[in-house]
Amino acid sequence: MHAVTYELLKEDATCGARLGKLHTPHGDFDTPMFMPVGTQATVKTLSPEELYAMDSQVILSNTYHLFLRPGSDLIRRAGGLHKFMNYKRGILTDSGGFQVFSLGAMRKISEEGVTFRSHIDGSKKFLSPEIATHVQEDLGSDIAMAFDECIPYPAEFEYAKVSTQRTTRWAKRCLDSHTRPDQSLFGIVQGGIYPELRKMSVQGLLEMDFAGYGIGGLSVGEPKETMYDILGQTTELMDKHKARYLMGVGTPDCIVEAFNLGVDMLDCVFPTRVARNGTAMTATGRLVVRNAKYAEDFKPIDEHCQCYTCRNFSRAYIRHLFKAEELFALRLLTIHNLYFLLDFAKQIRAAIAADRFPQFRKQFWENYRDCQL
Amino acid sequence: MHAVTYELLKEDATCGARLGKLHTPHGDFDTPMFMPVGTQATVKTLSPEELYAMDSQVILSNTYHLFLRPGSDLIRRAGGLHKFMNYKRGILTDSGGFQVFSLGAMRKISEEGVTFRSHIDGSKKFLSPEIATHVQEDLGSDIAMAFDECIPYPAEFEYAKVSTQRTTRWAKRCLDSHTRPDQSLFGIVQGGIYPELRKMSVQGLLEMDFAGYGIGGLSVGEPKETMYDILGQTTELMDKHKARYLMGVGTPDCIVEAFNLGVDMLDCVFPTRVARNGTAMTATGRLVVRNAKYAEDFKPIDEHCQCYTCRNFSRAYIRHLFKAEELFALRLLTIHNLYFLLDFAKQIRAAIAADRFPQFRKQFWENYRDCQL
Repeated sequence: MHAVTYELLKEDATCGARLGKLHTPHGDFDTPMFMPVGTQATVKTLSPEELYAMDSQVILSNTYHLFLRPGSDLIRRAGGLHKFMNYKRGILTDSGGFQVFSLGAMRKISEEGVTFRSHIDGSKKFLSPEIATHVQEDLGSDIAMAFDECIPYPAEFEYAKVSTQRTTRWAKRCLDSHTRPDQSLFGIVQGGIYPELRKMSVQGLLEMDFAGYGIGGLSVGEPKETMYDILGQTTELMDKHKARYLMGVGTPDCIVEAFNLGVDMLDCVFPTRVARNGTAMTATGRLVVRNAKYAEDFKPIDEHCQCYTCRNFSRAYIRHLFKAEELFALRLLTIHNLYFLLDFAKQIRAAIAADRFPQFRKQFWENYRDCQL
Repeated sequence: MHAVTYELLKEDATCGARLGKLHTPHGDFDTPMFMPVGTQATVKTLSPEELYAMDSQVILSNTYHLFLRPGSDLIRRAGGLHKFMNYKRGILTDSGGFQVFSLGAMRKISEEGVTFRSHIDGSKKFLSPEIATHVQEDLGSDIAMAFDECIPYPAEFEYAKVSTQRTTRWAKRCLDSHTRPDQSLFGIVQGGIYPELRKMSVQGLLEMDFAGYGIGGLSVGEPKETMYDILGQTTELMDKHKARYLMGVGTPDCIVEAFNLGVDMLDCVFPTRVARNGTAMTATGRLVVRNAKYAEDFKPIDEHCQCYTCRNFSRAYIRHLFKAEELFALRLLTIHNLYFLLDFAKQIRAAIAADRFPQFRKQFWENYRDCQL
């Protein structure tokens, strides 16, 4: 029995969308869900209580960053990541693979693992499937991810094939080295934009005993149509009784489409990152609150929004805080943007439950202007 | 009848310390009190709810900063400062005098007022007793301060005399131009380090109908003994049925001594400023949480402290956040430091109520190492 299990509650009759429960050592959570990102053991600018107040469930933290600073040994001695950062709900950690591969010229891949230089002090480091697994056991996240290579876009078929096969071998090594009973490991499907390789990847992982699956290597520069096409072909092949986590994707348009294709979990730094840049997400698109036109606009960011920020502060005030470089501004927009996406996922769950997700999706696209940056 | 009144509840039999209530349009508050500073319509990094949770009462906001940005007209149209920043308890605004005079070479004084250049864009601005009063009426603070000159230290007797006499004339002009019935104006005692001038200043102000008094021009570089000496000689001359506000003073040692000499209110940026620098205030002195020795220290900042930060997070975690340049760090230490000073004032009130303030003060000095930077 895995520490983390997925309970399928309902499948939409007309599309891939599904409702479920993710059971974890830190509680049961509703899927499909959006996961806020807390890279360095903190969701930037927010307290755990602010996350609870917006019904945040599982959050994501980054192994690469915590491995380098403050180190996973330290977090283990602190009693694990939940205790260290005082987040009492679910935590998922990625494997560090994505960040390490993003280092480009600063890393070197071998069958054994990846040698790279720290972005903090330039020191030489090494991550392998075993080390990434061990580090995540130190962190004590509810869900640990297998160490994989995120294939860039574009990539030749041959490169993608070699890489995907290695990711599958690495997945096996992660599983073999994983020992912590109160933590579950998810394998990661790769394969680039090649359906044949995605199929090979899924099949390879299905032969192993993972508690759930990540879908990696999407939203890395390919056209969105390609992403949705590959995603749909991938989820169709997957075990419907295990959770499917689409990694690093989380703008509203992608959320609607990913959930439509049977994704259960996803994460993205987008809402928190653009918040710190002065941009609020709303149902009708971006609102750049720094703009001069909001200087004397005493309405909230979104009059229909029930978040803390919209219930208490005006556009004019938030704009003032941004102009005056006051840190409270970053927090107010981070709260709003995360609430927006968590609430968006909640609306989708309600729509699936009421058999009206297809209409929800249709309406979304009719109203949607552009929430991307 | 003033909008803001001071109710004297108890005088210590052996020293100047006293207990009182400050009645304001936004509630009744216990004195002696420490006031957190929210310069730009925000106590840096904190929400109003975080301030309420630490029993913050009256906070201070700076007229100079708000006059320049976003402008007092805008705040008036927003419904006033309380509504703009959503702080529902008391707000005191200074007059801008202190900041304008701090500009040094960038300002020019005349009988009419002060011409200066904005620190934001270098544009030419003018503040006078009438304008400073008008701006504070726009802001709608509970307590507005008269426009004064803060005499630097050292200053020649003749300069201090001329300046103090002008401040008294300016106080009259502030009072004459003040119209808002739901706001009270405090006059400001100046006089530098010259007892004779302090006396002249107090007497001049007592002839006018102020709701309370600020004591300015102390803690500007003079030795602490001088400060305490002048402060004691000043409070002795003042009306004991009106509030006494010592401006810009707020380290624990100064708080104990000021309250001992009959001060009812004081404010200081010290706790919030050093917090953002990684320094926590404790009963046994500074704790520089950035220091390497706290890397694996899983105790709270102060094991006896009941603040949100100390109840939930370790030194190791806060140090990690500082090293990783995470903004939540600044907030956690700001909460701790403000809680520390607000609680310190609360302890002093309890000591005065129980007739044990002299012992409290004695014990404080026995334990006190150095909480200053």
